Amino acid sequence: MDEFSFINSIKQNSYKQPSLVKGIGDDAAVFRSEKDIVTAVDTFVEGIHFSRETMSPFQTGYRALAANISDLAAMGAMPAFYLVSVVIPKTWTLKEVEEIFSGMKELARYDHMDLIGGDTVSGSELSISITVIGLVEKGMARFRHTAQPGDHVFVTGTLGDARAGLHILTDKTSSYINSSYFVKRHQMPSPRSTFAVSLAGIDRITLNDVSDGIGNEANEIAESSDVTITLYDENIPVSDDFQQFPPSFQQEWKYFGGEDFELLGTVAEENWDALARIANDTGTQLTKIGFVSEAEKEPSVYVIIDNRKTRLDKNGYTHLK
Amino acid sequence: MDEFSFINSIKQNSYKQPSLVKGIGDDAAVFRSEKDIVTAVDTFVEGIHFSRETMSPFQTGYRALAANISDLAAMGAMPAFYLVSVVIPKTWTLKEVEEIFSGMKELARYDHMDLIGGDTVSGSELSISITVIGLVEKGMARFRHTAQPGDHVFVTGTLGDARAGLHILTDKTSSYINSSYFVKRHQMPSPRSTFAVSLAGIDRITLNDVSDGIGNEANEIAESSDVTITLYDENIPVSDDFQQFPPSFQQEWKYFGGEDFELLGTVAEENWDALARIANDTGTQLTKIGFVSEAEKEPSVYVIIDNRKTRLDKNGYTHLK
Repeated sequence: MDEFSFINSIKQNSYKQPSLVKGIGDDAAVFRSEKDIVTAVDTFVEGIHFSRETMSPFQTGYRALAANISDLAAMGAMPAFYLVSVVIPKTWTLKEVEEIFSGMKELARYDHMDLIGGDTVSGSELSISITVIGLVEKGMARFRHTAQPGDHVFVTGTLGDARAGLHILTDKTSSYINSSYFVKRHQMPSPRSTFAVSLAGIDRITLNDVSDGIGNEANEIAESSDVTITLYDENIPVSDDFQQFPPSFQQEWKYFGGEDFELLGTVAEENWDALARIANDTGTQLTKIGFVSEAEKEPSVYVIIDNRKTRLDKNGYTHLK
Repeated sequence: MDEFSFINSIKQNSYKQPSLVKGIGDDAAVFRSEKDIVTAVDTFVEGIHFSRETMSPFQTGYRALAANISDLAAMGAMPAFYLVSVVIPKTWTLKEVEEIFSGMKELARYDHMDLIGGDTVSGSELSISITVIGLVEKGMARFRHTAQPGDHVFVTGTLGDARAGLHILTDKTSSYINSSYFVKRHQMPSPRSTFAVSLAGIDRITLNDVSDGIGNEANEIAESSDVTITLYDENIPVSDDFQQFPPSFQQEWKYFGGEDFELLGTVAEENWDALARIANDTGTQLTKIGFVSEAEKEPSVYVIIDNRKTRLDKNGYTHLK
């Protein structure tokens, strides 16, 4: 594959977003929106964030865009556009890089996103930098600083699966039940955009996406909102076959495994039923896992395990033992 | 410098853009605009796009953002926001990376831009990926496909200076007149935002920024607009001390040196006076360098040197000989 075919292969022939005035093909892209615009960037480096041993180029692209879309979901925003910069080393063929773009395109098609810009440059290691742009009704972006005492804490889906999938991929010595499920959760995660966007009728909802594990995400919400969050360990949702892994792994993964790209949030008691209805309508597993209370000395996160309350710190599961 | 001080050093305490709803500090940034939104991304890799031997970390950051702002200028857009992803190898200290951000901040301050997102990850080589977002009045973005037969072709500033500056930095054997001028054009270029934004009163104007040299930029306009562009070699503006370089270098650099971040454009005869007035009001050197005519067999660019018309191809100056 030469460079010309490569550029043709990543170029879109038509655009899905009506707000797009000009996509790829000029010095910059142009779009127009009556809505609020939400944007974030994330970079993925080979050997740090992904490895050829555990992911195909297609999956690498898919997952990289999924991680970015998940940030938009955490803001309540509908995905709309993405721009991609790739640093390509000699060890990657253009064909393989094209597969990375195909992986992104696959997810973008599902989410009606348009690729509106990018850059491909040479370098010594593969890195993929994705900027996503989403749209949300004016004033309806969801922030992490809006949690209030009395709120329920909820999470979508099940936790720890992506980390379990990575474990299965790297542990060649054992065999596991339902391994394809866990592996898929790692390689091709599904961000919760539909659910997030469907929450528009609820005035106040606090959202974070579970990229670093709920231990970290809950602490971010607690700090930003200046509240205390208490979780019930027995309520943390895990998938049916999660108990096949060693208990210490389960504890670590469900709190700190990360990259499940589920949504952790808080909502007022009066809006719980509406939330549950939206979850049901969008086919989203929703679990109440705790509550918000006033911060005492400082914002903190606790988890109740076997009637014992333990502090849940960022970046570590040792406190759980 | 530890990571905490680093993040504090790049974080803005206040924001300049009134349209910003939320900057750094959540899963994504949020802004709102009645105008059209213009966005582009560019990535710079150490050893490919810049080198520590010819640029300080501060200058590297400054120049990287300048290159992106230049893309916005080429769309007629006012710079507003930027997001930065940096891959940091062990050979760079956080202090040095902080200087890269300081360089960007210096230019951003001048252009009232806010840093609204980013990512810093580790890797084996330094690369900086910048996404810029600009704003332009609805329907007033400038494209490269709008040139029409009869248009004048113009360029801002002088050409070849940045390439001459790089030459001075790498050629340790000679000394040059006015070297600091040329070196500055390479290390800390000034994109033509003020001029570009001031053109709002002119209905149709075609713009490309001179990132790859006017040889390439003129061909891009000719192809996109399906026209022929003819340039007069004697009219190509160069700075006073440019003739100190060997004539063959001068020819190469003014057509293909690139990275001057000037604007190449076309405008209808009837709007020339208005354009000249805006150039004068914004202190912008403006030179008429050619004209647009119907494409014959295919869109092409010619240059007239000593009454001889020669084809000016993309990516090469050999045809000029």
